[in-house]
Amino acid sequence: MAVLVLGHMNPDTDSIISAIAVADALNKRGIEAKAVAQGEVTPESAFVLEKFGLTAPEVVTSVAGQKVWLVDTSDKAQLPADIDEAEICGVIDHHKLGDITTSNPLEMWVWPVGCSCTAIKGFYDHYGLEIPAGIAGGMLCAILSDTVMFKSVTCTDADKVAVEALAKLSNVSDTTALGMEMFKVKSAVDGATMEELVFRDYKDFDMNGNKVGIGQLEVVDLSLLDAVKSGLKEEIAKVKADGRHSVFLLLTDIMKEGSEMLICSDDASVVEKAFGVAGDESVWLDGVMSRKKQVVPNFEKAFK
Amino acid sequence: MAVLVLGHMNPDTDSIISAIAVADALNKRGIEAKAVAQGEVTPESAFVLEKFGLTAPEVVTSVAGQKVWLVDTSDKAQLPADIDEAEICGVIDHHKLGDITTSNPLEMWVWPVGCSCTAIKGFYDHYGLEIPAGIAGGMLCAILSDTVMFKSVTCTDADKVAVEALAKLSNVSDTTALGMEMFKVKSAVDGATMEELVFRDYKDFDMNGNKVGIGQLEVVDLSLLDAVKSGLKEEIAKVKADGRHSVFLLLTDIMKEGSEMLICSDDASVVEKAFGVAGDESVWLDGVMSRKKQVVPNFEKAFK
Repeated sequence: MAVLVLGHMNPDTDSIISAIAVADALNKRGIEAKAVAQGEVTPESAFVLEKFGLTAPEVVTSVAGQKVWLVDTSDKAQLPADIDEAEICGVIDHHKLGDITTSNPLEMWVWPVGCSCTAIKGFYDHYGLEIPAGIAGGMLCAILSDTVMFKSVTCTDADKVAVEALAKLSNVSDTTALGMEMFKVKSAVDGATMEELVFRDYKDFDMNGNKVGIGQLEVVDLSLLDAVKSGLKEEIAKVKADGRHSVFLLLTDIMKEGSEMLICSDDASVVEKAFGVAGDESVWLDGVMSRKKQVVPNFEKAFK
Repeated sequence: MAVLVLGHMNPDTDSIISAIAVADALNKRGIEAKAVAQGEVTPESAFVLEKFGLTAPEVVTSVAGQKVWLVDTSDKAQLPADIDEAEICGVIDHHKLGDITTSNPLEMWVWPVGCSCTAIKGFYDHYGLEIPAGIAGGMLCAILSDTVMFKSVTCTDADKVAVEALAKLSNVSDTTALGMEMFKVKSAVDGATMEELVFRDYKDFDMNGNKVGIGQLEVVDLSLLDAVKSGLKEEIAKVKADGRHSVFLLLTDIMKEGSEMLICSDDASVVEKAFGVAGDESVWLDGVMSRKKQVVPNFEKAFK
């Protein structure tokens, strides 16, 4: 029975490509493995998969009785409901440590870097395994996406070194041009429903007993979202009504390097506690581009 | 403020040497770090420290407000009571994943190998850092101790490869002789109180809401324990009376490659559920030498 390699809910490009890459590396180590995902891929990921000739992972919603490797998360809230009935054999991640536990020793590669694929580059290297050109191209795009083309505060030297090596392996001569092409795909909102936009990159967190949802849309220019902003506000109100204390949606302008955060909360004072800026429906957070490193830790303190 | 590098309660040689080694590696990476421990060292560890000119880490009982790296554990039950008030920046371990969580991204090196020092060898190598001869000797002994000189089921090829490299770095020509010398020190029970013997290598676990203590004494010949066995039974009864469902003490014969397990439990049927062998006060478990890989997982299933 193949080990399932699985990322978080609402998979982003890092989650999708990490699953594909780790499954490849495990197979090369003699461990039969298969990339899966908890949902359909985003337009950005579809662009990356097509560009490098990769196949979208099969969608799974249950992992009971399976052996699994987790990529890009260690939080139960971001995993299938029956994750406790699976055996977690490995984790490769770059986030805070979540609430999964195991009964058996496991393998974990968790680095405080901008992207799980940077740790996966180290994983391939440690075992002396070759990264196929297509997977290297996908990993390169995942790092450019997660680090917002090196602009995010989460970006580290290790990410830049990995991109340089992966560009060679995938024969990409101009990583900036590739990144801009990818972010233009990511910025497109035409044809998407409000629900699709809110959940394109969305995660639920347990903050001191409160269920808090945080989504993020990254665009090359915030004005691209003018036409949909009121619809997004209505949509996050619906999501909040489904048993959540708060839902926040970050509209991140990767060129201006900041985020407008749409707010729907039982107690909007947590926003001022977290960021020192008050607002009922929305606030501008200058320099804030990273949910993981800038938004989640501040909210976790504010909810304490 | 130096980062504290800290292993589990009742520190064994792996916990002590791992703290010393990781502090050394972090300092070489430019992160000011200091090895500490949650208790005095065992006679085995004292032998290793003296043999290789190393100093026992300072004992700490509180880590509130500190930055910490954890070695050889990720379980809150094995950490200071105020661990939630510390910032966990890194973990190097070879056990199952415990219940610590973090608010920030961190660095984790967790490998399913016989000893944390094997993962630490990989950590030094990844960053291109030199391992001083004394620390290499300590790491070598930690691996020989944790893998019971390669006889434990937890021992992997990676442990053997690490021992070979560490022997060269520490100028140890006969690792078997060194291991036997160390295990003879570990086998000595003369002069130790019953309490010292029970807690020499002891850990508490939360098993489905039940507090379960499991200790282990490894000797080169079980007959060395004949004189103290009744005293040990009385001692684990005292430990159990302090709010525990069960206390088990493994008396491991490293030459016969099995363990006599002393039992004190509210419900000794968990032993039969776990191992298929019934006994009220003690059972012989042939081939069982590893608490981590053979005893804990079986009890966790039995308590479910």
